[in-house]
Amino acid sequence: MRKINIAIIGLGNIGSYLYKYLNKNKKILSKKNNCVPNITYVSAKTKNKKRQIKISKKKWLKNYMHATTNKNIDLIVELIGGSEGAAKKLVFSALKNKKHVVTANKALIAKYGDQLAKIAEKNKVNLEFEASVCGGVPIIRSLKEGLIANKISKIYGIFNGTSNYILSSMDKLNKDFKEVLTDAQQLGYAETNPSADLNGNDVSAKLKILTSLCFNSFLNNNIHVEGILNIDKIDIDNANKLGYKIKLLGFAELINKKIYQRVHPTLIKKSSYVASIDGVLNAVIVNGNPVGQSVIQGEGAGPAATTSALISDISSILRGNTKFPFSISNSERKKLSFAKISDRFFSAYFRFEVLDKQGVLSNITNIFSKNKVSIKRLIQNPNKNKGSSSIVIITHNSKNSYLDKILKTINKKKYILKESKLIRIHDN
Amino acid sequence: MRKINIAIIGLGNIGSYLYKYLNKNKKILSKKNNCVPNITYVSAKTKNKKRQIKISKKKWLKNYMHATTNKNIDLIVELIGGSEGAAKKLVFSALKNKKHVVTANKALIAKYGDQLAKIAEKNKVNLEFEASVCGGVPIIRSLKEGLIANKISKIYGIFNGTSNYILSSMDKLNKDFKEVLTDAQQLGYAETNPSADLNGNDVSAKLKILTSLCFNSFLNNNIHVEGILNIDKIDIDNANKLGYKIKLLGFAELINKKIYQRVHPTLIKKSSYVASIDGVLNAVIVNGNPVGQSVIQGEGAGPAATTSALISDISSILRGNTKFPFSISNSERKKLSFAKISDRFFSAYFRFEVLDKQGVLSNITNIFSKNKVSIKRLIQNPNKNKGSSSIVIITHNSKNSYLDKILKTINKKKYILKESKLIRIHDN
Repeated sequence: MRKINIAIIGLGNIGSYLYKYLNKNKKILSKKNNCVPNITYVSAKTKNKKRQIKISKKKWLKNYMHATTNKNIDLIVELIGGSEGAAKKLVFSALKNKKHVVTANKALIAKYGDQLAKIAEKNKVNLEFEASVCGGVPIIRSLKEGLIANKISKIYGIFNGTSNYILSSMDKLNKDFKEVLTDAQQLGYAETNPSADLNGNDVSAKLKILTSLCFNSFLNNNIHVEGILNIDKIDIDNANKLGYKIKLLGFAELINKKIYQRVHPTLIKKSSYVASIDGVLNAVIVNGNPVGQSVIQGEGAGPAATTSALISDISSILRGNTKFPFSISNSERKKLSFAKISDRFFSAYFRFEVLDKQGVLSNITNIFSKNKVSIKRLIQNPNKNKGSSSIVIITHNSKNSYLDKILKTINKKKYILKESKLIRIHDN
Repeated sequence: MRKINIAIIGLGNIGSYLYKYLNKNKKILSKKNNCVPNITYVSAKTKNKKRQIKISKKKWLKNYMHATTNKNIDLIVELIGGSEGAAKKLVFSALKNKKHVVTANKALIAKYGDQLAKIAEKNKVNLEFEASVCGGVPIIRSLKEGLIANKISKIYGIFNGTSNYILSSMDKLNKDFKEVLTDAQQLGYAETNPSADLNGNDVSAKLKILTSLCFNSFLNNNIHVEGILNIDKIDIDNANKLGYKIKLLGFAELINKKIYQRVHPTLIKKSSYVASIDGVLNAVIVNGNPVGQSVIQGEGAGPAATTSALISDISSILRGNTKFPFSISNSERKKLSFAKISDRFFSAYFRFEVLDKQGVLSNITNIFSKNKVSIKRLIQNPNKNKGSSSIVIITHNSKNSYLDKILKTINKKKYILKESKLIRIHDN
């Protein structure tokens, strides 16, 4: 039987899990792919670190960069992480030296994916990155193969398990952001430094990759990104009262030949599918023609789910299923225009914490009216500490730039006690 | 650029849609797959039937069977339907003559898939049938590729859009079975002869195919099949009151090295994901290791969704992604034992329509007790027509054979006014 020699570079939780899994399931994977996945080398930053796996000396590569030129390696699995430094050096060099590459590195692909894809195509090797987006959800393979027939108009969903865990726990356990974050860190659902998960950057990288795959476009940094750091328990409670849940969603959509990419907390109807996804799960919704709407849901992260994705990429290479990294040849990828969301229309949720003073409500509604934003619903509630009120406004569909301007204008007013909130609503 | 010559045999709704779609999207599909999908011939039962497509005389094949020997055909798309007759003859002969085959024919694959796969493997051609199971839901490709790493313990879901449309409409529109079926037929969601959809046979064929793919086993006819013909509006109302929805589900699961295949109406918690799937949608849930639980949802039928699936199969062949039809070589497929559900445990919903007579309730509960089935909940309601009552019983987890025996025993009693109901409950 044919075989493919594999080097795994990076032996953290994921690398170690993959190493064990590949060895344990070598036989069945060989049978399914008619080709043996043969680990010839591994490498990592520290050789003598305590790991759950035992590696024979013969397999240890002192200098990880030697993997890119070693003749006993056909495929390099990069599990170092980060868009620069060692990971970047390794993957560029591997592809230049005609090694197939499988990676879980979304930061690297979101930043250098176009350049890397060009080299892979030129050298007729695979560059696969299923594990970089939503772990166990086979969304990349589905876009490139299962849904290949479709013209996609929109992709959106929950792409970050940590944020989703925090938002749904705040809702269900009636706890505030900080408490839930501490729980999440103890449970291993949030990292010690959780900023990329919470500020939207993690979703941003994943969305950029999905956008390119959906629209046959190049990677593009025109993307609106907000995280969940500003979501208060009271916003979640208000959303509930109004029939919504708050979710951190990523959206990429093609409207009048322009692509909009955006990541932000979103009010979404309780009865919708997305609203029902709780905990660390990820879910991706794709609107395509002719298929209609497809949904894929699963574990978004962790060594087990990520290994499932890595093995699907490795198997694809074992079977010789050569594909363009971004579905289509570099020369055929389109230079579509990407638009800022300022011209896009949304209905929105506002929350203002104000001094209880005559004229405040009229001033606020006046600012809305001047900015051509019509109010669908307004709820004013007195706060416990006397002398202040909370005003919640739901708007009709309005231009994003006007919504932003209202927020800025009102935030400057003296009657504002705390930074005001603007959360967009997803209505369909 | 390389090209693959294609013959489409069968030009009903799906065949016509595929023909149009392939022609219209030839360019983009060629680019994505680095190979041209070139329709050289078509054939159908009646040449001069009124169709939405125009076909040049040169492409018309008088005798569809000539496709299997024509040198200008590499790939045959079989859209005739049915497990016997023309479809069977065509597909067997095509594979024997080393043509790739793409089919949407679940009946054929569920019946002759093992034999066909053996021929395809021997002749090194592809036999692809994504479109045979759940139309636009790329479940087969996901099992064979995206989730290839996984040991699957269970697959279940909603595999028949017609039944799901009828059950969810009975619930939402407060109509009875017959009314809803008439609506469904007018809307094109149910066929003039809807029996295969309603008696569970359609789900049975799909489930057999999925079982083989999940467990690397041969197709097996040991399957328990019930349809939705016996579901009354009152059962749906009762389920609602108890916190459940009724869905027609298919299940395949591996328990203690035995496989259980079953198709039956099922009470499932309202809060569960499956309960929220309404209308003609299909949804598949896969429990795998290491991936955890994955869910794929989409349009289950219709020319558009089916074309999406057919094109994914055709594209796979264009890219030369040769695979075993059932994931693994014929010689490696396992002869697993399939068990009847009689020994499996379920909690269950019973409904008895009884004469209001002293001793009836005690007789019924006595029969449960004698058969070692303990009662979790019992509700007795008098009916509008005096002298009769409806007794609903929810049991604890009990052996299926005992549940069946109780049903049979009680059905023979003189106090029973109508055939009693037994619907299994899915608790996790």
